[in-house]
Amino acid sequence: MPYEFRATRRVEFSDTDMAGIMHYSNFFRFMETAEHGFYRSLGFSVVMPETDPRLGWPRVHAECDYKRPLRFEDLVEVQLLVKERRTKSISYLFRFWKLNEDPKVEVARGLLTIVCVAHNPDGKMNSVPIPQEIAEKIEVAPGNLFD
Amino acid sequence: MPYEFRATRRVEFSDTDMAGIMHYSNFFRFMETAEHGFYRSLGFSVVMPETDPRLGWPRVHAECDYKRPLRFEDLVEVQLLVKERRTKSISYLFRFWKLNEDPKVEVARGLLTIVCVAHNPDGKMNSVPIPQEIAEKIEVAPGNLFD
Amino acid sequence: MPYEFRATRRVEFSDTDMAGIMHYSNFFRFMETAEHGFYRSLGFSVVMPETDPRLGWPRVHAECDYKRPLRFEDLVEVQLLVKERRTKSISYLFRFWKLNEDPKVEVARGLLTIVCVAHNPDGKMNSVPIPQEIAEKIEVAPGNLFD
Amino acid sequence: MPYEFRATRRVEFSDTDMAGIMHYSNFFRFMETAEHGFYRSLGFSVVMPETDPRLGWPRVHAECDYKRPLRFEDLVEVQLLVKERRTKSISYLFRFWKLNEDPKVEVARGLLTIVCVAHNPDGKMNSVPIPQEIAEKIEVAPGNLFD
Repeated sequence: MPYEFRATRRVEFSDTDMAGIMHYSNFFRFMETAEHGFYRSLGFSVVMPETDPRLGWPRVHAECDYKRPLRFEDLVEVQLLVKERRTKSISYLFRFWKLNEDPKVEVARGLLTIVCVAHNPDGKMNSVPIPQEIAEKIEVAPGNLFD
Repeated sequence: MPYEFRATRRVEFSDTDMAGIMHYSNFFRFMETAEHGFYRSLGFSVVMPETDPRLGWPRVHAECDYKRPLRFEDLVEVQLLVKERRTKSISYLFRFWKLNEDPKVEVARGLLTIVCVAHNPDGKMNSVPIPQEIAEKIEVAPGNLFD
Repeated sequence: MPYEFRATRRVEFSDTDMAGIMHYSNFFRFMETAEHGFYRSLGFSVVMPETDPRLGWPRVHAECDYKRPLRFEDLVEVQLLVKERRTKSISYLFRFWKLNEDPKVEVARGLLTIVCVAHNPDGKMNSVPIPQEIAEKIEVAPGNLFD
Repeated sequence: MPYEFRATRRVEFSDTDMAGIMHYSNFFRFMETAEHGFYRSLGFSVVMPETDPRLGWPRVHAECDYKRPLRFEDLVEVQLLVKERRTKSISYLFRFWKLNEDPKVEVARGLLTIVCVAHNPDGKMNSVPIPQEIAEKIEVAPGNLFD
């Protein structure tokens, strides 16, 4: 399904902070893990050294709503859903599911908007349309998956 | 001024990623640096082991808009502004200023909403009013500082 | 085999630095992933809240020799080998294997010495013998595995 | 003094782990902070995009001995001392001093060996002599500073 991807991670000791829970900044690292796994599942990598000019995918917006804490050794499913696809950018919604509860429970919800850019020889970058062969593989998820 | 705080940080090698810029998750670590510095400037610490029940300040919402990248050795000012103060929660707005450009330029803008909670003996936590002696030290920043 | 454990990790974007390779500090995070996986494979967790006094496993020594870089999306096997077991401490040797080369190649070798401590009510900690039920599950790896 | 540098850091919330102390991998990030500050103090940066071929400074060995934990908001001085200087490599010794005790107390001691390499057009790198203008600025610290 080119609108969804699921990555599974175990919360590691180095992901926690002295409050005994996963540090809030690490949810953003986990989102990226799912995003890059999604690209691999589509047959390409977020790093494309062979394109000319070299393309990049910087983030322009990131956010997260935290509902419940994650703790050491919790097993987490990061569900990526394509929320919006525009000519030069994509928005992903992420649902964090704690798997070691039955039924699994949603503990956080994130959002990431990325833009496709070309790295120019002068070191600057400017936004460009997402390459056709990538854009056509990515579709918006059905609305009911967001509920 | 109990509605503002400025922390200065230099972007370190370990803050960067292979795109050659500060990894987007690290802006959230920098926000927290400013937040905790703000508390210290008010005479208390975010960690208050002596209160009973023990209080904590988990984040319920975090977001960031990225306008320009930060690079290795860039000098960054993280300006914290109190955006909203409610009985049990506070929202901070963060403006990231790259100081090694003249005039300094805003590269990102973040938002953090934190809630005051009590850690109960059973391991659970529930939201509680911000202690009076802290709440009275924190006031909402004048609107013009957000422009 | 209670003297060996293998954890597999993919190098993530947030593990890299602007040199385009995994940041050297992250090899230490990966070692810990294998160490804690080893404990889980033996039926216990490094976090044992129910013991009285509470036990901990601080590191007293850590080192790493880097032979080759790891890059984004490399698949890494972290092989833990028990190197030495004393009454109050254990030394682990870690061999990092890059799996996405054929044959797999060793890219780094690490060492970790941990000590069993008791957390006393006054907040201090002192070293104590490793509990019998854990110590008897851990044996030193045969010498040929280190070559 | 071209054989010594002191960087000061406050332990941040995101530096801690659920054991309530600075995560052991972060001592290696702090060492690098001092190393790069040392280079800046000598008038150059560890990142030298203008050299041809491009030079790099990968680590070949890193280690740390931990004597006492560092906790949130502890003020730490990371003292860099040049331990050895060879044609193509340098070894630095790091002493971590906790400043918020009187007298300041040494909490950890680290070691880093870095090699000067040239990045070749084919993506490979090979060790090269440290450029003359850098090598002549770096001298070995007097032995008594290591005691």
